[in-house]
Amino acid sequence: MISERDCIKLIQRFASRIKSDYLVKGIGDDCAVITKDETNHQLLTTDTLVEGVHFNLKWHTPYLLGRKSAAVNLSDIAAMGGQPLACLLSVAFPEGVPSWFEDFMTGFSKVLKEHDTLLVGGDTVKGHRDIVITVTVIGEADKKNICYRSGAQPGDMVWVSGPLGNAAAGLSLCQKGLCNLSDPADKWQQLVKAHLDPVPLISLGKVLAESGIVKAMMDISDGLATDLAHLCTAGGVGAEIEQGLLPVSENLEQAAAELMTDAIEWIIKGGEDYELLFTAKSSDELKLRQHVAELTGREIYSIGRIIEGQGVFLCSKNERREISYQGYDHFHG
Amino acid sequence: MISERDCIKLIQRFASRIKSDYLVKGIGDDCAVITKDETNHQLLTTDTLVEGVHFNLKWHTPYLLGRKSAAVNLSDIAAMGGQPLACLLSVAFPEGVPSWFEDFMTGFSKVLKEHDTLLVGGDTVKGHRDIVITVTVIGEADKKNICYRSGAQPGDMVWVSGPLGNAAAGLSLCQKGLCNLSDPADKWQQLVKAHLDPVPLISLGKVLAESGIVKAMMDISDGLATDLAHLCTAGGVGAEIEQGLLPVSENLEQAAAELMTDAIEWIIKGGEDYELLFTAKSSDELKLRQHVAELTGREIYSIGRIIEGQGVFLCSKNERREISYQGYDHFHG
Repeated sequence: MISERDCIKLIQRFASRIKSDYLVKGIGDDCAVITKDETNHQLLTTDTLVEGVHFNLKWHTPYLLGRKSAAVNLSDIAAMGGQPLACLLSVAFPEGVPSWFEDFMTGFSKVLKEHDTLLVGGDTVKGHRDIVITVTVIGEADKKNICYRSGAQPGDMVWVSGPLGNAAAGLSLCQKGLCNLSDPADKWQQLVKAHLDPVPLISLGKVLAESGIVKAMMDISDGLATDLAHLCTAGGVGAEIEQGLLPVSENLEQAAAELMTDAIEWIIKGGEDYELLFTAKSSDELKLRQHVAELTGREIYSIGRIIEGQGVFLCSKNERREISYQGYDHFHG
Repeated sequence: MISERDCIKLIQRFASRIKSDYLVKGIGDDCAVITKDETNHQLLTTDTLVEGVHFNLKWHTPYLLGRKSAAVNLSDIAAMGGQPLACLLSVAFPEGVPSWFEDFMTGFSKVLKEHDTLLVGGDTVKGHRDIVITVTVIGEADKKNICYRSGAQPGDMVWVSGPLGNAAAGLSLCQKGLCNLSDPADKWQQLVKAHLDPVPLISLGKVLAESGIVKAMMDISDGLATDLAHLCTAGGVGAEIEQGLLPVSENLEQAAAELMTDAIEWIIKGGEDYELLFTAKSSDELKLRQHVAELTGREIYSIGRIIEGQGVFLCSKNERREISYQGYDHFHG
């Protein structure tokens, strides 16, 4: 067995053997970036969802699974500040194409349409035992605006675009049979929806990238602790997060109490929130807040700061503990 | 269950709902084609290989599996006359990344290098039960040269680039434990190699596309009967194939005899040969042959002609029988 980190190194070794002006950024960011023309770069991302690992048809309706399959890939384009343009879909079914695939396609294409993205290629192949969904998205961005993971500097503020831990809580609720998405009054609605139907923050990503203020950006797919550690490693810096500043949904604590879990675990380790994580100079705090509010009507949340050195630390009144890479683990999560 | 053909129609329905100048050719060809700039189009293709369906690690060494995973995707770029440029790889492993993945990556990147293609993105995800390999390739071609599946006209000659049925024979030999790739003198070497280590015909595809003579082109991945039926359907035509003209490797008949199979089944139904299938005016026969011989040193083989109407027919001395869509079936093959 090869550890996940060694595996990425292995792939990077093969990827970096060939150099080219064509390739701006290879493996190690939310998207690969290649030269398109004098003004624009192209963004490329691909992701695989496996039944029983990344989704469970017991609680994920085909329509919402279609939506999520598109959304999580579009989120990688959002994370660099790009506009998605085209999408390829490949699905492996073990026993022929099930009739629910039409609902899946309805959800899938609806999310693409919401973000002006075209489905340009699609195919189904024979699977063996698992349903496997692979989506590739091609996007574009003005090359001077693209936000990479690297670029954070000591003194920068660390920001997130919205509440954390909702998707992890929603997954737990689904696993316990406590989700009822068809009842709009259900108190877990927001948490369950975060897991089943995440929203790719394309407009916000573009606004942040075009602001000229954001220094580093990525989306939170593997949990704050792991993804902020990625961002810090890419920039050769560390980070301190203030526990009291972390944005949390109203009923997250209540769900944690009912499920006898510690909410902070969901908040820092829970994956799949697909919120944006970014940094900007402290002196730009007000400017950034206003810029985002004016153009999107959204609030954004400063949660800590970039420091010299390495490691991600969670600070509360009495404690400062390292939480680097403690999030979702692809192989042992 | 939805049949494979209905499924493609379903995907096409969702794909074609949105129209755009950006999208030149969507689902239904070897690659999706999108506008890059005034001169060039971009070619996009993705394909998924599932353990136990598309490959078997009992006889496929990781190094050769890596080579094949790259090659079958590059072949889709060859089929339209393009140059592959960039590649994304996504692999799902059920129980962590095995140590043989390094050999896989060696083979994978070697084929990319042979065709001047960069690995720009790669990731492994947790699988459930099956190993699943998904590859996406981005290529480019001068828009005036791109060869589509459509474009064949009654009277055109039908051509193939090389012997058919080798890969199907090679697979049968592997399944019976009769392959010995480490012995260069092994009599089944050529057949087994066709299955384990197919060659994407990038240079030939470009020469054919740039000739200005070829009217329609695709690669043979699902077998001659099925793929020629695809080409005919795309052009609104039919085809007649002369059994006596089909190019066959020296020892294919011998392998068929030893395995008590009819060689013609492999030749017309066997998938994965990755030879090119193309049409051109009868009057261009000599010109095309000479052009290809001069630029590539290769022989090409005329195997029949395009006719009015529909259906693919195999003609021998005594018989004319329809063979449309009788090849490899993704779900029941």
